[in-house]
Amino acid sequence: MPPFGLLHMRAWASLFGQLLRPRRAVFIREVRVHSQVAEAVLTSQLKPHQEKSHFVIKTPKGTRDLSPQQMVVREKILDMVIGCFKRHGAKRIDTPAFELKETLTEKYGEDSGLIYDLKDQGGELLSLRYDLTVPFARYLAMNKVKKMKRYHVGKVWRRESPTIVQGRYREFCQCDFDIAGQFDPMIPDAECLKIMCEILSGLELGDFIIKVNDRRILDGMFAVCGVPESKFHAICSSIDKLDKTSWKDVRHEMVVKKGLAPEVADRIGDYVQCHGGVSLIEQMFQDPRLCQNKQAREGLGDLKLLFEYLTLFGIAEKISFDLSLARGLDYYTGVIYEAVLLQTPAQAEESSNVGSVAAGGRYDGLVGMFDPKGYKVPCVGLSIGVERIFSIVEQRMKTFGQKIRTTETQVFVATPQKNFLHERLKLIAELWDAGIKAELLYKNNPKLLTQLHYCEDMGIPLVVIIGEQEMKEGIIKLRLVASREEVAIKRENLVAEIQKRLSES
Amino acid sequence: MPPFGLLHMRAWASLFGQLLRPRRAVFIREVRVHSQVAEAVLTSQLKPHQEKSHFVIKTPKGTRDLSPQQMVVREKILDMVIGCFKRHGAKRIDTPAFELKETLTEKYGEDSGLIYDLKDQGGELLSLRYDLTVPFARYLAMNKVKKMKRYHVGKVWRRESPTIVQGRYREFCQCDFDIAGQFDPMIPDAECLKIMCEILSGLELGDFIIKVNDRRILDGMFAVCGVPESKFHAICSSIDKLDKTSWKDVRHEMVVKKGLAPEVADRIGDYVQCHGGVSLIEQMFQDPRLCQNKQAREGLGDLKLLFEYLTLFGIAEKISFDLSLARGLDYYTGVIYEAVLLQTPAQAEESSNVGSVAAGGRYDGLVGMFDPKGYKVPCVGLSIGVERIFSIVEQRMKTFGQKIRTTETQVFVATPQKNFLHERLKLIAELWDAGIKAELLYKNNPKLLTQLHYCEDMGIPLVVIIGEQEMKEGIIKLRLVASREEVAIKRENLVAEIQKRLSES
Repeated sequence: MPPFGLLHMRAWASLFGQLLRPRRAVFIREVRVHSQVAEAVLTSQLKPHQEKSHFVIKTPKGTRDLSPQQMVVREKILDMVIGCFKRHGAKRIDTPAFELKETLTEKYGEDSGLIYDLKDQGGELLSLRYDLTVPFARYLAMNKVKKMKRYHVGKVWRRESPTIVQGRYREFCQCDFDIAGQFDPMIPDAECLKIMCEILSGLELGDFIIKVNDRRILDGMFAVCGVPESKFHAICSSIDKLDKTSWKDVRHEMVVKKGLAPEVADRIGDYVQCHGGVSLIEQMFQDPRLCQNKQAREGLGDLKLLFEYLTLFGIAEKISFDLSLARGLDYYTGVIYEAVLLQTPAQAEESSNVGSVAAGGRYDGLVGMFDPKGYKVPCVGLSIGVERIFSIVEQRMKTFGQKIRTTETQVFVATPQKNFLHERLKLIAELWDAGIKAELLYKNNPKLLTQLHYCEDMGIPLVVIIGEQEMKEGIIKLRLVASREEVAIKRENLVAEIQKRLSES
Repeated sequence: MPPFGLLHMRAWASLFGQLLRPRRAVFIREVRVHSQVAEAVLTSQLKPHQEKSHFVIKTPKGTRDLSPQQMVVREKILDMVIGCFKRHGAKRIDTPAFELKETLTEKYGEDSGLIYDLKDQGGELLSLRYDLTVPFARYLAMNKVKKMKRYHVGKVWRRESPTIVQGRYREFCQCDFDIAGQFDPMIPDAECLKIMCEILSGLELGDFIIKVNDRRILDGMFAVCGVPESKFHAICSSIDKLDKTSWKDVRHEMVVKKGLAPEVADRIGDYVQCHGGVSLIEQMFQDPRLCQNKQAREGLGDLKLLFEYLTLFGIAEKISFDLSLARGLDYYTGVIYEAVLLQTPAQAEESSNVGSVAAGGRYDGLVGMFDPKGYKVPCVGLSIGVERIFSIVEQRMKTFGQKIRTTETQVFVATPQKNFLHERLKLIAELWDAGIKAELLYKNNPKLLTQLHYCEDMGIPLVVIIGEQEMKEGIIKLRLVASREEVAIKRENLVAEIQKRLSES
């Protein structure tokens, strides 16, 4: 394992170490509360005069809420991904959730039917964004930016048949990193693959491989196999299904649905079985049919250079040149790649088929589609499939019964005394104003035991206890929840003492 | 100024101190590049066979992209707001961008027409969320949660006439904090006002005041003035416009459009001019007309208790009881509040009218609208208007010509030598794997001067320079960009030396 794997493993462990506590019973109870109510047919009773009497209280099909536990895991994953993007010098941008409908048309090939349109309520025709790549290209063209290394984290929406068990949603979060600009070949492309390796190693998702291919090699392959040029995109979409569908079914689709001659399909079949490392590139250079084709030769030459750089980055052994990789989207023009997790047989049995967790490629023509003069800005980038990664981490945590702290509260303000609300309010305001994370119960006269139980349940480390006797003596009691030890502190030293103890822990 | 103001001012200054550099010329140039191209009529040239030949390349009306400079400012504001929410013990949740259409109906009164619907593409009827409050209530009811302190940061969408100069957008970010559950009166309500004060002081937006009222006092006032109960909501919506519209126009709307008797309107007019502190509450308690009304008495009693707690929190002088405050949304049932910035005459002249920057209130009936048995979960919360705050901070930074670093790159890898790409790639991978934020130019043979200029432009503090001579000697040069000083370091100590220097700076 390369050194960055070790580094990130440590970082990950230390990040999650403080969150995870092995308290299975509590965690399982909480999960049940949140899952038992996925859908319930309810009656609206507040306004009995309403026409509708029954409605289902649920989130829309293919979407979900994230509970506090889920948000903590999500945030940790995003922090790690964004940390990596920043390590590679990227700036962040944001774009609206929806775009003019025509901004999105003719960009996604067969997937265009999955775009969510907004209702025409007067004014412009709008669609929810389908990915973060087309909005980025629109941003570059609109602002006449010729060179930019940016990242973007945001939700995208696709009207897919939601099979939630596979971690596919209609609303999901993407983390994109892209390099736009005219540079010497394959240097930014290699950096994109390096970033994917750093993130996947850092998140400790287990062993993985990144499949690499080039659209020019695919096009060249199609050409020498005898596919008519008008069918390149359609056949490319079929090939893209090879990770989920057998060759037999893909061949059937190409021949029966897309009208490809059977012998042409069979020639393609010979190629798409090939995958390997640099040696396969050399082998393809020797292929007399493929090397007639200029595009294929260019693609192979660039892949060779790419592997040189990947070797310098120490990640060549993670990369597999795979002629069956096609990527569904229309806009790719060069190198394409897709990271898949390699599961142990035990994992494959217990968990859902997660498949691709990160992907991307080169799209040199997309910005030009938005520019009035067709001025091209070459781009290459990647997208991290946070949703799938999140499913894996969540599954792992459930398996190990790990408890997550969902708040960061450091100090709880308690009293054993009745009618002490005023004193508690004054004290907690002092803590808040000193930047200390503090809570109290919203009751005039809570029981001391209730207050202490709350701290143990929530994992709050310190309790400040005020009572009449202590007030008279000018002191205050500080209780350490873990050890149940209590110490007396001078009232005026309270904030300093708490800050000292928090910085030590 | 209370102590937390001082604390946050320091935190804010130190957060922004490292980002801000007084380099007016550079900043202004960058702003111009991003703003000159807001809308441009373009011709799609890549696919000349297409029907449409002209389209406008722009973001939808009322929406905008955020540039890297804007994102840095936005992130700092969000960090501070979220930090405050966490200080008060809140958990984070997330909900989908759209909800079932019927989840949103009958919640927003006159504003319902501003909801974005999705096109009916088969399946469920969906709408984009209008705020984060209704989705929270739906979340509580669906998951049968009876008690929760949560925050939520996310975009919401409203089809308002966009007057961007006032900082109003159709897509904007909200930061919500809410406390759900049955507690002793006014304790959570007081905490919400404390949070608003902490955030507004912490962001150093200048002096502000928080207007407070209670829906029960408004309803009582309407009743004793002679408004028919069926018109309460409609008249409340009119009163809500008093911060932007004169009393004369509001009176006109109530009488002419909403059919209120002129003498009833005039009685309301007497009340809505009143604002003040605790003494005004006492005065209203003496009002013989208002005190006939049970609701009004309850509201006044709670406000009195609220001011007790606000005094203990040290923020009473920031709060103004204001009988003209109505809040447009239907779902409020008790205390309501709205924070407004108090501008100096100079500010008022130069800047746009920003108005309300945070608001909220108590809504005890909303969760019950989703529960099959009408089970109520009382809630109180607040929403921070990040967009408006962002406009103010951005305007201030433009005025002072402050330069923002949009990347966090720590080290640049440079060479004066030709054909040194391989060495640069190996070296930068070593830095990335050690967690160091590093960049290089994507060129085989960049000029040394170009590389050094890039570092000065981007504010990168350190440059590692490798050349043939140094390689032979087993050393490497480290250049400090600020002082232009260069030191020789043993090759094997490079990472440790960089980490040492970065931790010192």
